[in-house]
Amino acid sequence: MTQAKVTEDFLERLFDELFPICRSIAGEGFRRSLAIFQRNMPLELETVPTGTTVYDWRVPPEWNIRSAKLTGPDGRVITNFESSTLAVVSYSEPVDRRISLAELKPHLHSLPAHPEAIPYVTSYYQRTWGFCLPDRELRALKEGEYHAYIDSTFSEDGGVQFGQCVLTGESSNEILLTSYLCHPSLANNELSGPLVLLGLFDRVSRWPRRRFTYRFLLNPETIGALCYLHCYADHLREKLVSGIVLTCVGGPSEKLSYKMSRRGDSLVDRTVQYLRANEGSPIEIRPFDPRGGSDERQYCSPGFNLPVGQLARTVYGQYAAYHNSMDTKEFMGIGRLVRSIDEIEQILRAMEAGSHYINLKPYGEPQLGPRGLYPNVNSAATWTKSNDALIDAREFLNRLLMVLSYSDGEHDMMDIAKRCGCKLNGLSGVVKQLESAGLLAHKGF
Amino acid sequence: MTQAKVTEDFLERLFDELFPICRSIAGEGFRRSLAIFQRNMPLELETVPTGTTVYDWRVPPEWNIRSAKLTGPDGRVITNFESSTLAVVSYSEPVDRRISLAELKPHLHSLPAHPEAIPYVTSYYQRTWGFCLPDRELRALKEGEYHAYIDSTFSEDGGVQFGQCVLTGESSNEILLTSYLCHPSLANNELSGPLVLLGLFDRVSRWPRRRFTYRFLLNPETIGALCYLHCYADHLREKLVSGIVLTCVGGPSEKLSYKMSRRGDSLVDRTVQYLRANEGSPIEIRPFDPRGGSDERQYCSPGFNLPVGQLARTVYGQYAAYHNSMDTKEFMGIGRLVRSIDEIEQILRAMEAGSHYINLKPYGEPQLGPRGLYPNVNSAATWTKSNDALIDAREFLNRLLMVLSYSDGEHDMMDIAKRCGCKLNGLSGVVKQLESAGLLAHKGF
Amino acid sequence: MTQAKVTEDFLERLFDELFPICRSIAGEGFRRSLAIFQRNMPLELETVPTGTTVYDWRVPPEWNIRSAKLTGPDGRVITNFESSTLAVVSYSEPVDRRISLAELKPHLHSLPAHPEAIPYVTSYYQRTWGFCLPDRELRALKEGEYHAYIDSTFSEDGGVQFGQCVLTGESSNEILLTSYLCHPSLANNELSGPLVLLGLFDRVSRWPRRRFTYRFLLNPETIGALCYLHCYADHLREKLVSGIVLTCVGGPSEKLSYKMSRRGDSLVDRTVQYLRANEGSPIEIRPFDPRGGSDERQYCSPGFNLPVGQLARTVYGQYAAYHNSMDTKEFMGIGRLVRSIDEIEQILRAMEAGSHYINLKPYGEPQLGPRGLYPNVNSAATWTKSNDALIDAREFLNRLLMVLSYSDGEHDMMDIAKRCGCKLNGLSGVVKQLESAGLLAHKGF
Repeated sequence: MTQAKVTEDFLERLFDELFPICRSIAGEGFRRSLAIFQRNMPLELETVPTGTTVYDWRVPPEWNIRSAKLTGPDGRVITNFESSTLAVVSYSEPVDRRISLAELKPHLHSLPAHPEAIPYVTSYYQRTWGFCLPDRELRALKEGEYHAYIDSTFSEDGGVQFGQCVLTGESSNEILLTSYLCHPSLANNELSGPLVLLGLFDRVSRWPRRRFTYRFLLNPETIGALCYLHCYADHLREKLVSGIVLTCVGGPSEKLSYKMSRRGDSLVDRTVQYLRANEGSPIEIRPFDPRGGSDERQYCSPGFNLPVGQLARTVYGQYAAYHNSMDTKEFMGIGRLVRSIDEIEQILRAMEAGSHYINLKPYGEPQLGPRGLYPNVNSAATWTKSNDALIDAREFLNRLLMVLSYSDGEHDMMDIAKRCGCKLNGLSGVVKQLESAGLLAHKGF
Repeated sequence: MTQAKVTEDFLERLFDELFPICRSIAGEGFRRSLAIFQRNMPLELETVPTGTTVYDWRVPPEWNIRSAKLTGPDGRVITNFESSTLAVVSYSEPVDRRISLAELKPHLHSLPAHPEAIPYVTSYYQRTWGFCLPDRELRALKEGEYHAYIDSTFSEDGGVQFGQCVLTGESSNEILLTSYLCHPSLANNELSGPLVLLGLFDRVSRWPRRRFTYRFLLNPETIGALCYLHCYADHLREKLVSGIVLTCVGGPSEKLSYKMSRRGDSLVDRTVQYLRANEGSPIEIRPFDPRGGSDERQYCSPGFNLPVGQLARTVYGQYAAYHNSMDTKEFMGIGRLVRSIDEIEQILRAMEAGSHYINLKPYGEPQLGPRGLYPNVNSAATWTKSNDALIDAREFLNRLLMVLSYSDGEHDMMDIAKRCGCKLNGLSGVVKQLESAGLLAHKGF
Repeated sequence: MTQAKVTEDFLERLFDELFPICRSIAGEGFRRSLAIFQRNMPLELETVPTGTTVYDWRVPPEWNIRSAKLTGPDGRVITNFESSTLAVVSYSEPVDRRISLAELKPHLHSLPAHPEAIPYVTSYYQRTWGFCLPDRELRALKEGEYHAYIDSTFSEDGGVQFGQCVLTGESSNEILLTSYLCHPSLANNELSGPLVLLGLFDRVSRWPRRRFTYRFLLNPETIGALCYLHCYADHLREKLVSGIVLTCVGGPSEKLSYKMSRRGDSLVDRTVQYLRANEGSPIEIRPFDPRGGSDERQYCSPGFNLPVGQLARTVYGQYAAYHNSMDTKEFMGIGRLVRSIDEIEQILRAMEAGSHYINLKPYGEPQLGPRGLYPNVNSAATWTKSNDALIDAREFLNRLLMVLSYSDGEHDMMDIAKRCGCKLNGLSGVVKQLESAGLLAHKGF
């Protein structure tokens, strides 16, 4: 096995390459961004064509922009696309008009609460155009004739794209890891998710064994998840054990924050709750809430109700830089991404170790002596040598008996660890020996 | 829509007409009383003939009484039927005997604890005769020959009757409202129930829409409910969402008192619990108890176990006037009946609003923008205008998303109101708009 | 019915006859012991032949021992089989060797913590030999040549035996009572269980009626239970309502101690919990735990998961005399066995009285008046005479109505007693009258 390639330096180079691109939900920006990820993970791309009916939605045309400029009465350029991808409302229709300040004003967007920041504004499903600029600049605009110029195009020939790849495991049942790739130059609420996804792909690909199959998915938010469900809902219904949407996984917050799936009983829900309550893992837990969030809103809509939660660090809507030009690399922090990769990998490992295993000899207790799991001479004095480096022989046997008794398909290893009063890794030696002895197998779901 | 006709004056005129009638479980008194209600609601009558086997019971003969008199040794009339319908044990057999005080005593009933009151006594299923009188009078009786005279008849040609009518709603699933009409001149424990039932018929008939179908039923207590089940148990099993037995809904108590159904999970059970816990409604709740009560004992017997609770105000057995001549119009209070009608109508409205609705586009979130339910331009500044007079735009959208997410057939609107932190009427605007947009429908059960 | 024959004297004579026998899991000692019990209860014997595969196990050969002796360098007999059946490791292979102290030591077993006690040691499934002796004697052994002599034989022609008998009841569904008979001269952790089992057989055989069928089983521990399951698992799956393993039911502890079944919801589980919580019965409750115990480990293994708990008094592993020569008749106490018989009989009676009964007239309330269960004249004054010696008429009727309402197959009599606020025997009069009236029947499971 080679050294992990997704280092902090590697992530920073990728970030710097991705940040300037003007992404949107469909068009060149998304395609170029996905291609950069494709260099590092074997994403296969699929397109749902513009005009396709996807549940209650219609797949929109692609949008591309070449340039844009707002010029003042004095000929001064007030803002332009070259200075910031945020300067133009996403999905702005083309315009080349000379208009008064009064006519212009409804097309200008700013953030009075943060007068230096450029807000991020979209209008995907109703044709309009607009510019975004700092509130301080907007307030300084004088009466006169302005020139609004946006050179954008819509194409009905493209579609919404997504890219996915799979790391197969012992079970064909799947863990889905997904993030979105459709915001322009934003850091925590855009690039943090895909970069951490790439880091997790790198980590999981190096594991010596995988109990589950892992699926990695990048798509534009909302419409992309709907297009993905349009193509893969039946597959997910059959195979999905748990999914995690990654969003805003950088930023200053100390702890990861997990948002429960709507079902609240999936493996990832139980694992995060278990780690927090029983192993002291520093994770905040948010209840499921349909009123905000990312693509878990689609996966958890009542018709699907899939076991998908969401992980964030500095949560959307809870920080001033959310959806504006203050959401920079410095705010996000590349080091924070590595920390998120480390912590989420631990959650995935706990899901592997903490899921259901099955006692293969469930009728009566299996005979442990001939398998070297029980002292052949049963006397008070024989309980001295251990089969495990960490615990004494009696404790090893106790945990082994508990694992055999409760590996019935109803209780998972987290239940059993709680009954044993130990952590998950306090069962790993027992599980290993029982698997070697042919007495235990991972259930795979 | 015309003005409600069931006013306090109207109820008092009806009360005064009904009170003197000597009702029993079968006979002229019941028939005449039902005819008075039939003038004001389209009750259809059915009869289960005398002698019919109804579950473990046999329908008794009709009983009619023309006159009765108990005369003392000195020729003085001690009591007679003309002075009070309570003076004769209900279902007394005819008698015309001169007997000693010792022989007479087992046929006399009084209430030592309330020496001025005449008790209400019945003997439906075993032939006997008797007189009821104030204990003060009974104690003053002297030795000598008495003349007991009761001119009553039994008829095997009649039967037990009930009357019902239906107000159809959008769903064929039903709410049953029922009371009994078989006690003679008693107010709270007799006429309060049928009069409030009539008031509720009047109210519900004027609603602009009814989610459920409403069934109104009057019958003699116990044997009448059994006869009704004999005819309609299959219908109720198929259609009944919830039922409420009305009994003792007048009197001095400040609060309505709801007795849970045996199942404890019906719509009316949940609604009353919800209103009390979440909307501050002044309702007492009693657990289900088979040891006492009214016709819910039959509906909730283990073979049926129907979702029927009971509403009272001044509860049977908990007041001194229960089952005796102190239970008068003054004790009951006509104004109390109007108040009960008002409060029970609110419960019925909450059942309509709080029951299950279904998201008709449950696969992914529906597209709200084109339906005017979401701002087309998504920026921090667009959340200002509201689609609802009471709440701001963001709160309206939040409740709408909550309603869509949880209208899955498992959660009802009471669950959703709790999740939203609002009252049921805080969801009415959202529900109305979602129904108009074709995104939501009442589930009907 | 004759007087109970299992008196304290009777038990002591039996104990004295059984104690000296060298029992093991298969062989003459077991057979002779079982024959002694067979004199007093009609046990039918079955044998699973040596070599049979029983789940994960192979039935071992029979082991018999004629004599054994360990002689020191000076010719002194250090220990021999005649002095104690514990002196030889159970299932020791034959040996006749002169060896040094160093070679001998791995074959010697003692208890350093209790230097005067001889430990009880077994090696059923791996061939070896050994002697057990007080640690004080072991430490005093001097260098020199020792003579180890064990005259034992293994036979492949026998097998593992068990003996069972049945007391049929009204229902063919069964309560299993079982104990083990495979330890040599130990009292609390051996003979207490079979002797109490015999006492319970005697008691239950004298009951005027049995709601359930009772099965009594004696077998060698672990392998015997596995052999029994090998033959009867399907029968138990179909018929077993509850089982109780009896172990260590003597000794100084004041209270019986019940170990829950793995399911935790069986009739015996619920009864013991009910008696403790609601009737003040002095019983300790232990949770199910697969890490130790007796044959409930086999019955409750996840593939079977049968409703079998375990009763003990002075619990294995919690007293110094456990598995060594201090576990004597004096430690156990014959009087304690009688007390255990008394207390366990009370639990069995509570299981009969507290299980499920069925209302045979569940549609509406049955008519109670003609059956003498309700006063025919309904007035406040008629509630004076009672149908039960212990409670007044109204309370009797109240309990009767509660029993009728909740005898629906879902609630058992313990639930109903709690709802009535009385003990189980406070319902016995009601149950008796309802059964006589044809309104109630025991459900049988």
